[in-house]
Amino acid sequence: MTTERGIALQSAGVVGLGLIGGSIARDLHALGVRVLGYDRDGATLDMACAEGVVDRALDESLTGLEDADAVIVAVPVLLLPDTLRTIKDATSARLITDVGSTKRSAIAAAESLGLGERFVGSHPMAGDHRSGWRASRKGLFADAIVYLCRTRRTGEEPVNLAQELWRALGARPRIIDAGAHDQLLAYASHLMQSVATALALTLDDAGVSRTDLGPGGSDSTRLAGGSVEMWTAIARDNADALVPAIRALEGRLAQLRAALAREDDDALHTAFAAARAWFARTEGDVGAEARR
Amino acid sequence: MTTERGIALQSAGVVGLGLIGGSIARDLHALGVRVLGYDRDGATLDMACAEGVVDRALDESLTGLEDADAVIVAVPVLLLPDTLRTIKDATSARLITDVGSTKRSAIAAAESLGLGERFVGSHPMAGDHRSGWRASRKGLFADAIVYLCRTRRTGEEPVNLAQELWRALGARPRIIDAGAHDQLLAYASHLMQSVATALALTLDDAGVSRTDLGPGGSDSTRLAGGSVEMWTAIARDNADALVPAIRALEGRLAQLRAALAREDDDALHTAFAAARAWFARTEGDVGAEARR
Repeated sequence: MTTERGIALQSAGVVGLGLIGGSIARDLHALGVRVLGYDRDGATLDMACAEGVVDRALDESLTGLEDADAVIVAVPVLLLPDTLRTIKDATSARLITDVGSTKRSAIAAAESLGLGERFVGSHPMAGDHRSGWRASRKGLFADAIVYLCRTRRTGEEPVNLAQELWRALGARPRIIDAGAHDQLLAYASHLMQSVATALALTLDDAGVSRTDLGPGGSDSTRLAGGSVEMWTAIARDNADALVPAIRALEGRLAQLRAALAREDDDALHTAFAAARAWFARTEGDVGAEARR
Repeated sequence: MTTERGIALQSAGVVGLGLIGGSIARDLHALGVRVLGYDRDGATLDMACAEGVVDRALDESLTGLEDADAVIVAVPVLLLPDTLRTIKDATSARLITDVGSTKRSAIAAAESLGLGERFVGSHPMAGDHRSGWRASRKGLFADAIVYLCRTRRTGEEPVNLAQELWRALGARPRIIDAGAHDQLLAYASHLMQSVATALALTLDDAGVSRTDLGPGGSDSTRLAGGSVEMWTAIARDNADALVPAIRALEGRLAQLRAALAREDDDALHTAFAAARAWFARTEGDVGAEARR
């Protein structure tokens, strides 16, 4: 049976009810899907049940997941392998997916556990610097890109179901190779987190606080407020792709600095103009989406 | 005579009707102040008059400014000295102020022209990556910090009038030494612009477009859309303070990169945690202001 918005799921397991998992659970509940939920934090699980979002609370054995048509794992990257191991024995769901920011390690974990056929790696480009159930909300994935990565053995049905799931949440799925994903995200996301972190440390050293910043500076440093544990794990997991990205940025900064030091107006103008051109190339495409 | 919101100005000259000057003119007009306006772009000046914001259009001689109680100069940093020279002969206004992002050069220009007694340097921390009259709007300065810098000879009356003027526009004036301002802004603003520029160039090199970014990446690169001419001039004007700021950031990035390369989880965790602590220290103070 299919719900109104066309999602062919009766029930779904959501393991981890933080910002991402909690928001998925809220959307699925609103779509009429029965949500089986677990979080290692008992208070979180209690809140999710009390708000009526989670229909059935699971314990750490994940017993009860056998009823789920799909399982979404929204735990920190480092906990994924152990969580998948528990899920493997607990469910015969047609789709098992995660939401982590790195995909090669997720695919490798699923394959090594023999979950390859029904695993699809997901990475929704949504969220903000807040975290936890309290930050979760309906509609978080509206218009967001969601990268989907197959294992070497993923079947067509799980891929179709994953696309359907994310579309039902308002997101825009893009199928991509896990290696290409991690390379792209090293620049599009993990570099941004690294820069916000380095900026925060630099400003702290200089005695500059967030209250000294204008709107541009606030936006540029907002990511520094993100989860320490999550970002330590993501950066480590994608280090081989992130290291060259940071080095490339250092090179561009050094060029700008050298142009300033030698009072080279032409070089400065060229740099600002090239950056502006990159920005303007997609101005129409981003617009409202980026400002959301 | 004083208007309703307590601004003791009958008339004000606004020279330069871009994002900042245009927004000042709109607010002053709304407060009942007679606005004498000039812009080197004739179409801009025509629009400002047609919308009824500018009560009297001036030509490049700025004849007519003799009636102004205060003159606000909102031209690009590099044009300030020539503009002040023209203004000097055109007005006996009690206050002459600018809106530029660097203040030592503005103070020096005013002093060298003999305008020191009635000049106060202003720098409103407002605006965004758009520019020009069309981007100007009422209320742009609501709750914004505005730095005010004296010359060595500025009298009390111009300082009081400048504070009154900005408060009437909803802003929060902070009096600061011009050198301290330029040092602070090298970190709080000009470094942010440099980073967004270097990020844009790095992403461009890697074939990553703005449509590949999530909300965090969009915010982190938004400043790259700023005015090329304006930022070339600002960066050059404050190069001596900006060069060490960029170098400090490069150092922090290199530390992060080295920690990643040697798989040093402790060092990574420490860096992300210190950045988070900097962010969280002022979370309550920034809040709504930063998200505007």
